[in-house]
Amino acid sequence: MGADKLGQTLGAMADSNQKSEYIVGVDFGGTKVLTGIFTPGLKCIGKTKISTKAQRGTDAVIERIARCVLDAVDECDLKMDQVRGIGIGAPGAVDTENGRVIFAPNLGWEDVPLKKALEKLLDRPVFLENDCNICSLGVYETELDPKPRHMLGVFIGTGIGGGLILDGKPYSGYNRTAGEVGHMVLDINGPKCGCGNKGCFEALASRTAMFRRIQAAVKEGQETLLTAMLGKDLADMRSGDLRKAIRRGDKFVEKVVEEAAEYTGIAIANLINLLSPQVVVLGGGIMAALDDEMLAIIVETAREYAFPGAIKGVEIISSNLGDDAGITGAAVPARRETR
Amino acid sequence: MGADKLGQTLGAMADSNQKSEYIVGVDFGGTKVLTGIFTPGLKCIGKTKISTKAQRGTDAVIERIARCVLDAVDECDLKMDQVRGIGIGAPGAVDTENGRVIFAPNLGWEDVPLKKALEKLLDRPVFLENDCNICSLGVYETELDPKPRHMLGVFIGTGIGGGLILDGKPYSGYNRTAGEVGHMVLDINGPKCGCGNKGCFEALASRTAMFRRIQAAVKEGQETLLTAMLGKDLADMRSGDLRKAIRRGDKFVEKVVEEAAEYTGIAIANLINLLSPQVVVLGGGIMAALDDEMLAIIVETAREYAFPGAIKGVEIISSNLGDDAGITGAAVPARRETR
Repeated sequence: MGADKLGQTLGAMADSNQKSEYIVGVDFGGTKVLTGIFTPGLKCIGKTKISTKAQRGTDAVIERIARCVLDAVDECDLKMDQVRGIGIGAPGAVDTENGRVIFAPNLGWEDVPLKKALEKLLDRPVFLENDCNICSLGVYETELDPKPRHMLGVFIGTGIGGGLILDGKPYSGYNRTAGEVGHMVLDINGPKCGCGNKGCFEALASRTAMFRRIQAAVKEGQETLLTAMLGKDLADMRSGDLRKAIRRGDKFVEKVVEEAAEYTGIAIANLINLLSPQVVVLGGGIMAALDDEMLAIIVETAREYAFPGAIKGVEIISSNLGDDAGITGAAVPARRETR
Repeated sequence: MGADKLGQTLGAMADSNQKSEYIVGVDFGGTKVLTGIFTPGLKCIGKTKISTKAQRGTDAVIERIARCVLDAVDECDLKMDQVRGIGIGAPGAVDTENGRVIFAPNLGWEDVPLKKALEKLLDRPVFLENDCNICSLGVYETELDPKPRHMLGVFIGTGIGGGLILDGKPYSGYNRTAGEVGHMVLDINGPKCGCGNKGCFEALASRTAMFRRIQAAVKEGQETLLTAMLGKDLADMRSGDLRKAIRRGDKFVEKVVEEAAEYTGIAIANLINLLSPQVVVLGGGIMAALDDEMLAIIVETAREYAFPGAIKGVEIISSNLGDDAGITGAAVPARRETR
């Protein structure tokens, strides 16, 4: 330590090491790539979003992910050598250990060595996980204290996904596909789901399901403030529009949202009976927009449907991370593995 | 080792130790207590069954369990000092570590120190687990080789229970109630369940559900061979009677059983999507009686409903342990802990 020469050499190395403190979290799906830059304390200091363009093929998407990372780093006035690791949440079944996307139907991907490809493009260590597990992990690491042993994340947006934290770590099962809560059949004679089955949770309570119900009713003459707000074809309807309509007294929209909340409560009761988690966290775009309208109904319905012994002491809460759950969670393993 | 005196002393101790090789497995529920005596290789050499008589209260039930164990040991011409440990599967939420039944609604029990009470009565170490976990563990230890990392047991009888083996060990969750597959809502507008909800898996596919459907149809004039076999009020109908009627060509009974098998397949698809197990084992009285009639339909329906990526390589099989799954599984921790 006292020797000047050694000190200089180490000093140069340390200088470069000290700079490599930032962590990048990437959340990508069929539609968009979102990248966040995080401090070691997991504070997000900047974000960049681009579209995925899955139709252009695997290589093009991987290049777009790399470009999104480079853009985000640049946007924060940083250089890549100040980044110590990159975490990424991918949609579908993921082999975390080997950094491969096993299959991702939304992207048309099968066995893609994403970790290796991105490490080649970005020259930084990359850590891969499933996107829903990653969202749960983001909530788990930044919003829960003390940490529960068993947590369940349910993310409601265009679709519905879930992530399980069991015994303190993400659980993905034999085929690495666990947590597929959205396609739990709740109503065997219910509406057709995109997956081909009927009455899946996602076909009953996702944004898509609510919008479809509203559009069908409007076609049959249902009156709603939404048509005055958005036009008769309800173009560009967003989750926030439902909230606005409800707050302005639209009983029809209120009923649609209430029903979705009830279905969500039943799904969560099923999950609590099955897995006995300590905490259930709700997230995603629908919860971000309609938390006040939905959470109390979800909790009440879950309590009505779950076994008293299974739901005793269980917290059902909503995440404040919103769209940032994925990038935050993606940063978690990257931070841990590069410590 | 060479000293004669020491040799004699140790010899006497070893003699008594060598005798303590048998393991007792107890499976008790709201109706009956079943006790099995097992060799160290988990071969069952004798069984005794008595009724639970839950209405007589906790102390009386505990005494009956102890008596059932003593009777089973005696029936095998053994003495209690030849028993090295007793495992017991109890219905409800169980604190394995402290040996307490946290709550068991079927028995009206709350926080019962069953391990301690039985150890006092039987003077042998007692190991407690949840009854459905225990059944899964029995199948896991004696029927599966190599051992899968994640397994799901579904037991269909009067009711429907489940047990999860995740990461190679029983999973019970925060409230120790996990695995409650029977009360997963599958058909929100379906028949009323004993639990108060509608359309639970158990209300659609258990023996109770099938019998109820048959009885209701017969009341409305449905013809079936069962009335010729059992009389018009279908007194003492058993699962095996359904098999007999089907084999004699009763299309109505066949349809009832097929529908139950389809519901079971959908439930299993939900569970595979959620938990991605490698093996799903079906057991219980219904499967023991109607395996040939149900298993193929269950597997086909599960493959139709589950995600291809989640069900890939997953085995859905039925257990041959029948009613012995519980006692066998109960013996597993007792064997392990007294090694």
